Amino acid sequence: MRASRLQRATRHASAVATRVMTRGYQVPARDMRFLIYDVHKFDKHYTTLKHAAAADRETIDMVIDATKTLCENELAPIWANGDREGCTWINGTTVKTPKGYKEAYELFCESGWQGLAYPEEWGGQGLPMSMALIQSEMTATANWTFTMFPGLSKGAINTIIAHATDELKQKWLPPLVSGEFTGTMCLTEPQCGSDLGQVTTNAKPNGDGSYKINGTKIFISCGEHDMTENIVHCVLARLPGAPAGTKGISLFLVPKKQYADGAVGDFNGVTTSRIEDKMGCHGSPTCQIEFEDAQGWLIGTENRGLNHMFTFINTSRVGTAVQGVAAAELAFQNSLWYCKERRSMRALSGAKDPEHVADSIIHHPSVRTMLLFQKAVSEGGRSMVYECAKLVDKMTDCERAGDHKGAKEVDERLAFLTPILKGFLTEAGKEAADLGIQAYGGHGYIKDNKAEQVFRDVRIASLWEGTTQIQALDLLGRKILLQKLKPIGEHCGELRALCMPLLTSGNAGLRGRAWSLFYHTLEWQYLTYRVAFRSTKDKEWISSASVDYLMYSGWVTLAAHWLRMEQAAVHSLAKGGDEEPDFYNAKVQTSAYVFDRLLARTRSHKAGMLADLGSVMAMPAANFSFDHSR
Amino acid sequence: MRASRLQRATRHASAVATRVMTRGYQVPARDMRFLIYDVHKFDKHYTTLKHAAAADRETIDMVIDATKTLCENELAPIWANGDREGCTWINGTTVKTPKGYKEAYELFCESGWQGLAYPEEWGGQGLPMSMALIQSEMTATANWTFTMFPGLSKGAINTIIAHATDELKQKWLPPLVSGEFTGTMCLTEPQCGSDLGQVTTNAKPNGDGSYKINGTKIFISCGEHDMTENIVHCVLARLPGAPAGTKGISLFLVPKKQYADGAVGDFNGVTTSRIEDKMGCHGSPTCQIEFEDAQGWLIGTENRGLNHMFTFINTSRVGTAVQGVAAAELAFQNSLWYCKERRSMRALSGAKDPEHVADSIIHHPSVRTMLLFQKAVSEGGRSMVYECAKLVDKMTDCERAGDHKGAKEVDERLAFLTPILKGFLTEAGKEAADLGIQAYGGHGYIKDNKAEQVFRDVRIASLWEGTTQIQALDLLGRKILLQKLKPIGEHCGELRALCMPLLTSGNAGLRGRAWSLFYHTLEWQYLTYRVAFRSTKDKEWISSASVDYLMYSGWVTLAAHWLRMEQAAVHSLAKGGDEEPDFYNAKVQTSAYVFDRLLARTRSHKAGMLADLGSVMAMPAANFSFDHSR
Repeated sequence: MRASRLQRATRHASAVATRVMTRGYQVPARDMRFLIYDVHKFDKHYTTLKHAAAADRETIDMVIDATKTLCENELAPIWANGDREGCTWINGTTVKTPKGYKEAYELFCESGWQGLAYPEEWGGQGLPMSMALIQSEMTATANWTFTMFPGLSKGAINTIIAHATDELKQKWLPPLVSGEFTGTMCLTEPQCGSDLGQVTTNAKPNGDGSYKINGTKIFISCGEHDMTENIVHCVLARLPGAPAGTKGISLFLVPKKQYADGAVGDFNGVTTSRIEDKMGCHGSPTCQIEFEDAQGWLIGTENRGLNHMFTFINTSRVGTAVQGVAAAELAFQNSLWYCKERRSMRALSGAKDPEHVADSIIHHPSVRTMLLFQKAVSEGGRSMVYECAKLVDKMTDCERAGDHKGAKEVDERLAFLTPILKGFLTEAGKEAADLGIQAYGGHGYIKDNKAEQVFRDVRIASLWEGTTQIQALDLLGRKILLQKLKPIGEHCGELRALCMPLLTSGNAGLRGRAWSLFYHTLEWQYLTYRVAFRSTKDKEWISSASVDYLMYSGWVTLAAHWLRMEQAAVHSLAKGGDEEPDFYNAKVQTSAYVFDRLLARTRSHKAGMLADLGSVMAMPAANFSFDHSR
Repeated sequence: MRASRLQRATRHASAVATRVMTRGYQVPARDMRFLIYDVHKFDKHYTTLKHAAAADRETIDMVIDATKTLCENELAPIWANGDREGCTWINGTTVKTPKGYKEAYELFCESGWQGLAYPEEWGGQGLPMSMALIQSEMTATANWTFTMFPGLSKGAINTIIAHATDELKQKWLPPLVSGEFTGTMCLTEPQCGSDLGQVTTNAKPNGDGSYKINGTKIFISCGEHDMTENIVHCVLARLPGAPAGTKGISLFLVPKKQYADGAVGDFNGVTTSRIEDKMGCHGSPTCQIEFEDAQGWLIGTENRGLNHMFTFINTSRVGTAVQGVAAAELAFQNSLWYCKERRSMRALSGAKDPEHVADSIIHHPSVRTMLLFQKAVSEGGRSMVYECAKLVDKMTDCERAGDHKGAKEVDERLAFLTPILKGFLTEAGKEAADLGIQAYGGHGYIKDNKAEQVFRDVRIASLWEGTTQIQALDLLGRKILLQKLKPIGEHCGELRALCMPLLTSGNAGLRGRAWSLFYHTLEWQYLTYRVAFRSTKDKEWISSASVDYLMYSGWVTLAAHWLRMEQAAVHSLAKGGDEEPDFYNAKVQTSAYVFDRLLARTRSHKAGMLADLGSVMAMPAANFSFDHSR
């Protein structure tokens, strides 16, 4: 069944592969296969999973190729208009999505992609979770706002699978997994974002096992649209008499419309009262939703709603990290094309293109550093995401096997890496997108060139799912200090294990960079101890050091992944044969750039996190300005 | 005459000061006066100028107060709508500016502000150039795109005053200086931006002393609009038989309409064929202009057009640096308001606002670092601009006195500082604006909160007037290495002279920071030698190191200005008296932040500029990607 679905998807995509995009996104399939097979060896990894459908090389390649066709021919071409046209709030009731989104979504669902990694029991194809994550990076790069619709559904599906009753599962999972309905997560309210203890939306028992939900939620991505007949909201609300704060929040399933016996029924008191006018991401609506006596059903346990949500917070934050990688890749592709095309000045060391009036700007080192930054973040970030994707597979496998201890161990490792991925990769992706504007010069400011859209679309990434500042506190406070430094010790130990055999390598580049990473793992631990010790005197040291600590962690982690890639490339080069040496040499050269130029960023973050707390805390809040009367 | 005009301006502004802005820009007059009187002592500086109208304390205060009223009541209130409504290209001929822009411009001109610093001979008020620069930062912060209209006119006026014949001056300066006409600079063409040697627009003699201009210019700011009856374009073009490249470019005055005996006449073959759809700056049109047999007049000498332009390149680049300062200030004001208002979580060290459900986020160190960054860049950047404003005064005074040697000396100093200001302050201003989004969390992504508009408006600053990469090459290549390191030696010497008396200060903070700056001036020179030496082997080292070198220079320069401010604050604190100590303490506290946290950024830039050239240059252009078929 799975193979036939994938084959159908491939046919679907090919049938419309007639348009030729001159500058649209191209899936970097060669780079992805290098990571999948040479670096992370997913084909071997998949053989270790016991509770997912077997994904062999043929299956992996089929998913990549079919998704590539879908991305290049369907999703990328409607990306720019998605921004231009945006979403329209019609008659104060529904939301019209941009031209082509509905058709693309139908194709996506018909091809069975929404259920790719969900159990066959609910209509899915049962492949490992990582396959869906690998796929989502491609669709995210082709068209981020389109990808949000199925992405939000996944959040709802994951929540329901893990915590809902069998009755709710049997009713709501099939239409969600098939894509017939979409889903959302309704957390934020006007007065609170990350501080969910302030939630005031309330739920009152109807006496029949269902609840009446009342309240206002804001920033609900894909909260209303015209692509499906129904939408399933996962809503945080308080039960009568619930404890104040985070321990009194419950989770409810609240559909836009009633649904029974496979038929969509009446409206259910869920209305969209506003859609936001945003900096970017115009292709997906951000809704304010009013719940007025809406009928809902409890998911999981009373007052444990936040804990239930946190089950997936790692997965969804890794999904946001993908947004950073996607922006870096898209910015890289745009910039690379332009920097080869655009001619300005002569290279300082003499003409490179003497037959032309000026040299291509790709010859200028200050332009190259921008391109290399984008390339390094895109490919290195992808590798970071793949590492987590494998952990998600392992965790899911343990859960399905009932191995809670095993699942917990993997989850802890994932929990440590998640804030680094989410915090660092969204910041680095943002910088890559900003350099995408810079590489175009004044032309980067012009909408037609789309460089600025990449930036506007990705700018939300370091804000939602917890800001960079929240990720930083999560990493340093919750994940490291609260765990008595155990996770950082283990992590740095693993990185040193990676370095160890390379410290005596005959390859000078590999050897030198292994020593550099080795040094940084020790310094990283040293800095952790310094901050930990200081925080025993004043806990504000944690917050003061946290963002620099996060970024330090990110650069070291990125460098570690480049070392792994370099190691794989050197291995392939040594094997020789018919493989293209230029491809592998480019990996080695990028790794050299990362260690020379990007790891250098840790110098400032080190100094920043060791800076005196007083210089941040001394000024009373009232004294920041004597001129603004506010 | 001057006083009465200023008084009229004050009345004008007061008459409409009825609206109350709850969150609009407020001119930081207290901060500005601290810099003007306590740090830079403009009142004393003005007594040294021989060829400008005397600007005493009363005059300075009157300009600040009247501009404050203008900014807060007229310019700031139309800023957000300027973005929403934008400019409209009407019937393919003219451009409609946003609501209120025309009225505000008329008020601006009636008040005599356009001529504030131009000679009375041409209808100006003859005040020092620095007064106009100080004023422009206020209007730029209140409404950048509005400020562009008079700003571009200044570029044209400066060009005409310096290089045009008396006949052209007498005809065109009065309507430009009064604001009756606006002006533009037409340099860029589709195929070339900074590389102006590629210009192809041509000029053919008509035989009557005038020329026929033909060609297409793009990115012409305020190139067409509905605010004045006529527009005066300064156009770069080639004469028949002119040498190829930069040595064959001449400069022409080409009006939109003919003008004789004080009356505007027929159209002159200058049409706008397109206005750009941009990321931001929607309030000012960016035009593509077609010159079709347009009549023009030579400004200055044949084939010396680029040299004539470069006379003002420093002034106009300092003007762009002001855009960075303006963004930092506006972002700071927005963020500060919000971070006091918004409540989330408890401080790690215990509740700060126990009477509320959560603490104001201004209590969190990771939020404070964002606010302090904005404050440090805004106030420190303003001080950097003021230093250059004094140099512009001195240079203008020397020129008017016929002291060419004196003018050249001041010009060289200005030429050294300019790329640092333009390159560094636009990058730092951009970061401050980005933090302005971050400080708002998800709400920063919503247009209504205006944080994102500050970013979109300032994003052009590091692109136009030469990208950051161009500024970096200008600083390290042209201004330092080509001058055999003399300017950097002198500059660091001056900074050490500033430090010297403070190295033994009884004030520990001042003493410590003076030693830190002292160290950095020596390291800065050391790094210059290292790069200079390497560049003798391969000139690409210059470009490879240049952006890190520029940013290193910027952070050290910013720190130096904060040391000067701290010195002045400590002086005032020591004096005691009725002055508010909190105000001065806040300066000392911000200085501590700058030296602890921002000067730390030099660590990475140092490492970056010393990184191996090979890691940037090794990869052949064709090998950056094996997946994109472009």
